[in-house]
Amino acid sequence: MTENQNVINDLVGYKNLKIVQNKDWFNFSLESVLLPNFVNYSSKKQNILDLCSGNAPIPLIMSTKTSSRIIGIELQKEIFDLAKETIKINNLQNRIEIINDDVKNILNYFESDTFDIITCNPPYFKINDKTLKNENKIKAIARHEISIKFSNIAHISKILLKNNASLYLVHRTDRLVEIINILKENNLEPKTLRFIYPKIGKNSNMFLMEAKKNANSGIVILPPLITHNEDGSYTDEVLSMFS
Amino acid sequence: MTENQNVINDLVGYKNLKIVQNKDWFNFSLESVLLPNFVNYSSKKQNILDLCSGNAPIPLIMSTKTSSRIIGIELQKEIFDLAKETIKINNLQNRIEIINDDVKNILNYFESDTFDIITCNPPYFKINDKTLKNENKIKAIARHEISIKFSNIAHISKILLKNNASLYLVHRTDRLVEIINILKENNLEPKTLRFIYPKIGKNSNMFLMEAKKNANSGIVILPPLITHNEDGSYTDEVLSMFS
Repeated sequence: MTENQNVINDLVGYKNLKIVQNKDWFNFSLESVLLPNFVNYSSKKQNILDLCSGNAPIPLIMSTKTSSRIIGIELQKEIFDLAKETIKINNLQNRIEIINDDVKNILNYFESDTFDIITCNPPYFKINDKTLKNENKIKAIARHEISIKFSNIAHISKILLKNNASLYLVHRTDRLVEIINILKENNLEPKTLRFIYPKIGKNSNMFLMEAKKNANSGIVILPPLITHNEDGSYTDEVLSMFS
Repeated sequence: MTENQNVINDLVGYKNLKIVQNKDWFNFSLESVLLPNFVNYSSKKQNILDLCSGNAPIPLIMSTKTSSRIIGIELQKEIFDLAKETIKINNLQNRIEIINDDVKNILNYFESDTFDIITCNPPYFKINDKTLKNENKIKAIARHEISIKFSNIAHISKILLKNNASLYLVHRTDRLVEIINILKENNLEPKTLRFIYPKIGKNSNMFLMEAKKNANSGIVILPPLITHNEDGSYTDEVLSMFS
């Protein structure tokens, strides 16, 4: 695997943004567009942290929605390098900083009660025997709970979020109950949920969630988000996020 | 409040079924149609129990979908009498039996691991200071957690369900997280969820859930169930449940 497999893509629809990718390792996914569009930004300056940043699609899109500075963290050097190049070609070095370290070490960088917003598009899958046989290591670490589990992410968020501030995450629907339990164990109260459906009439595959530190119970389930039309094209709502 | 306020209504669309109601106390609701339509019945004879039966709309509709015998239980004598009359005029005395007792006493009637299916359309609201000021007592007990809480229902279901058998319930979406936690505490694993939306573009107000005793984690979120069209009429999917 060599550097020259990296390609620079337009971040479709985000007029001036480009993203550096590598098909063997890490490709930008639709969830990376849905999550930053789900976040509630304040007009005030906020401290924003993105965990498991990958090649930084979420910080990149958030930079079009807020003027706040955004911190990201990505463990894998190869993917971190893509993120760094992405930020450089978009000339966003003053707006986005990505740390190359294990997310579990982030508590060494920041004090507790620091962030107004934490976002995370985490590794979705539990490890099983086939994980490392079927995928290359870099891809496996990005997709599976090998180096970090959701319980680590919830624990870190609980510490780094200000009181009543929000963790925004996207995850697989089949793990919803487990994710809710882990959040509750960390005093992160699920407050807003939006289920993503690949097409009308299909079961939900993913969800977007806002969980607030130390909030009261009571949840709002937003209208369903259908991503694709019958013919496989994006729905108008998804297309509107790209413009 | 006198008996002559009772009225006999056709259970709309269920050709031969009639239901005895009393507007001052307890009116048949759409959830009573959605829940029995959400249940998976086996072709084999099953033991079926409906908790908080009210005037027995759920046992009534279940009797059109299964030939199994159905037990119900209703605390309030006035509402129990409506259920009894309902069963009599539909000539279902051999198919449906309603017990007039506190649901919390049901463990006196049946042994543990007895039921294949338990259904419940419980009181939705927590008690607050205004509860008994704003409503008559009979209505308040049917709608609020005065005589029974959801934790009682989960505890009873855990004991009375066979291993891997299902509790089917309908509840308010804002209490979803709390309901999931109470179910998990009682080894009832949420396996299937369907969110009910009053109209397209609105937040969900209710949900249907199947929780299985001692099952593994992993949940399926079914396509959204929209109950009303823009003009306030029922959607085709809801209408199809009445035919």
